[in-house]
Amino acid sequence: MQIVINPSVREWEKLCSRPLLDFSRLETEVRAIMEDVRNSGDEALRRFSKKFDGVEVNELEVSSSELRNSGDYLDQRLKDAISLAAKNIEAFHKAQKPREVKVVTMPGVECRMKYLPVDRVGLYIPGGTAPLFSTVLMLGIPARIAGCREVILCTPPDKSGKIHPAILYAALKSSVTSVYMTGGAQAVAAMAWGTESIPMVDKIFGPGNQWVTMAKQIAASAGIAIDLPAGPSEVAVIADQSVPASFLAADLLSQAEHGEDSQVLLLTTEKSIIEPVQIEIERLLNRLPRKEITGKALDHCKIIVFDSYDVLMEFINTYAPEHLIIATANYRQLSEKVRNAGSVFLGNYTPESAGDYASGTNHTLPTNGFARAWSGVGTGAFMKRTSFQEISAEGLKTLGPMVEFMAQAEELEAHRQAVKVRLDYITNQSNVSWDQSIH
Amino acid sequence: MQIVINPSVREWEKLCSRPLLDFSRLETEVRAIMEDVRNSGDEALRRFSKKFDGVEVNELEVSSSELRNSGDYLDQRLKDAISLAAKNIEAFHKAQKPREVKVVTMPGVECRMKYLPVDRVGLYIPGGTAPLFSTVLMLGIPARIAGCREVILCTPPDKSGKIHPAILYAALKSSVTSVYMTGGAQAVAAMAWGTESIPMVDKIFGPGNQWVTMAKQIAASAGIAIDLPAGPSEVAVIADQSVPASFLAADLLSQAEHGEDSQVLLLTTEKSIIEPVQIEIERLLNRLPRKEITGKALDHCKIIVFDSYDVLMEFINTYAPEHLIIATANYRQLSEKVRNAGSVFLGNYTPESAGDYASGTNHTLPTNGFARAWSGVGTGAFMKRTSFQEISAEGLKTLGPMVEFMAQAEELEAHRQAVKVRLDYITNQSNVSWDQSIH
Repeated sequence: MQIVINPSVREWEKLCSRPLLDFSRLETEVRAIMEDVRNSGDEALRRFSKKFDGVEVNELEVSSSELRNSGDYLDQRLKDAISLAAKNIEAFHKAQKPREVKVVTMPGVECRMKYLPVDRVGLYIPGGTAPLFSTVLMLGIPARIAGCREVILCTPPDKSGKIHPAILYAALKSSVTSVYMTGGAQAVAAMAWGTESIPMVDKIFGPGNQWVTMAKQIAASAGIAIDLPAGPSEVAVIADQSVPASFLAADLLSQAEHGEDSQVLLLTTEKSIIEPVQIEIERLLNRLPRKEITGKALDHCKIIVFDSYDVLMEFINTYAPEHLIIATANYRQLSEKVRNAGSVFLGNYTPESAGDYASGTNHTLPTNGFARAWSGVGTGAFMKRTSFQEISAEGLKTLGPMVEFMAQAEELEAHRQAVKVRLDYITNQSNVSWDQSIH
Repeated sequence: MQIVINPSVREWEKLCSRPLLDFSRLETEVRAIMEDVRNSGDEALRRFSKKFDGVEVNELEVSSSELRNSGDYLDQRLKDAISLAAKNIEAFHKAQKPREVKVVTMPGVECRMKYLPVDRVGLYIPGGTAPLFSTVLMLGIPARIAGCREVILCTPPDKSGKIHPAILYAALKSSVTSVYMTGGAQAVAAMAWGTESIPMVDKIFGPGNQWVTMAKQIAASAGIAIDLPAGPSEVAVIADQSVPASFLAADLLSQAEHGEDSQVLLLTTEKSIIEPVQIEIERLLNRLPRKEITGKALDHCKIIVFDSYDVLMEFINTYAPEHLIIATANYRQLSEKVRNAGSVFLGNYTPESAGDYASGTNHTLPTNGFARAWSGVGTGAFMKRTSFQEISAEGLKTLGPMVEFMAQAEELEAHRQAVKVRLDYITNQSNVSWDQSIH
């Protein structure tokens, strides 16, 4: 751990920099896989499963009975926990669903903004020993609430050619339309361009290893929408003496255990909290099964002491952390000063892991400073804004001449004509009815 | 113009395909310009202005007096038109501003979604003979409503080293913070990484030529947020006999006059409308100053006749047009079936040009089928969602054990500990107070 006292603003850039992700060495290989899937479809997916997952996959789609019965293989307590998390995620994401906006901007001119679901979305869920069922809920539930017509999920099979029942159970709970057994760059390609079995989607969501990240980048530059650019997970913790050191130690470690490249920051105005936290970290670290990875992540963890909360908060807004824990006596006040962060955890009893799983907020968040301009996943990420406008003949009589004038100034004559032919028509019509009213 | 009668679904893919944009041949050159700006800052910007714009630029920033006095050089009618457009755009974009969402997902667990402005945004406005002041309003006004702290605008100088007063006047009306005289890929690089004069921004907005488009793509893949991926402008018009042929002709032409690669579609279930529209197009086309460009765009214009509105609307949702005009007797009914479109114009008196300038809706919209997953620019494009959560001791007592269980299932022990140390602390505290109450 590196301790920095009162860094000058010139030092901030370096303190805020994240590790450079360069997957470009993978690019040729990932592109080749994706092209192969684009050309050979299901056959390529089966071939890659044999090569990378070490299994023969006959049916790419998981059968509806397997999906329906997935709960039979799970501990009741885990099912209860999944149900509670699903309930909270649903409550918060339902409330986020945007409502139509209707405004009469001037008499006879009505503008509406409708929020329409993305028709078809694809969720990618990584494989590995620990099943990421929580991510299934975080993506599947908002997709259902948004009203997406089709929500497909791709995840690689394990060594025995199966998908963990917790993944399937979470998919079932989220009303995912169909689950396909395929992973890696090949799954991203399948969702981007479709195969015989897997439909092409309009937007791809979900985390993944460097192959998946590279594949999503390639899909994005080919014009397929993706949820977020990727980067290693991060937490910044703001703390003072009001919070027990053991809470802070566990929070920092729970970020560090995600991977060696996890970014962990502790910010304070009270130097005296550092030592107790370090002691607690040592104590807890030894009891962690992922001790080695966690330790490596801690090596580049930074503890920064600031003179004032004003400067500290300005630093936070420059850093723009994915997760921000504010565990200080004045946390409410500080929370009002947050301008750039993915998800914020307030007070002493709100660990990040609560939001990771079950408080109701989403855990798919902008890393790498992207919180300065990107949103985390929410219901809105599965929808898009579409404007509708309707102008009456009366409305066009007022607005039209202005439009004609502006079109002329931008030298677009047909734009002007589109108004003029209509205004002429309206004038002629009223002349006609006037003539008729005389006779 | 190509007339297609009842195309089979197999033919849709071809009918929906857009011209392939390939600016990659520019990539090396654009990257070199951007690197140059990144390394040499203002000096490079001045050098490129000399080279590309043919002028010496001393002060990159337009002075506040020049901005303030820009109205003196404009026709009063144009100023009135700009003011009316600004008023309508403001009314519609204010109504779009998202409101904070607060939900108690379960007792003691409060989740909030705050919508925070993007701190610093950069607007790019192309040069050329016709000043695109309308685009300044469409980007600058929502940025101000969103609450962005800094809104900068870059636009190239004309041959005399000036910026058209209509651009400056629109910038003034939109409360743009500062205007810089620089264009092309070099302006995008300046906004992406900053120079001595121009601050680095968090998100870049605005249209541009192929150099600007390529530069925005490069900035995007370097992690700088952009408004939308680019493509040529498009309109799809759905019409029946209820609309005068001259209206349709003007609408189709006003899209075609944007450029040779403009995409123009006319869709109908009534074959009889085709001939009158063709006659009106011929008549009007001859009177247009941009006749040559417009004619070339019309060459690849398609008129498609469908058997039923159900199939027609399914085609529209597959095509996902940037602009959609529905000028049929049953336009209200059809508008309910729109799932994928950027902006929709309803009825006989709502030409696209009204929305392009002044109805209140935004004209920065997704082209190239991107409307399937992307939103046009609105107030939301200048903001991002940030979640806040606060859990009380009581709340953690209910939620915590579930989180512990899920963390265990995902094999993240420190995540579990972050809950456990808190629950242990709560238990100890209540034991202490219980003990104390005995004595």
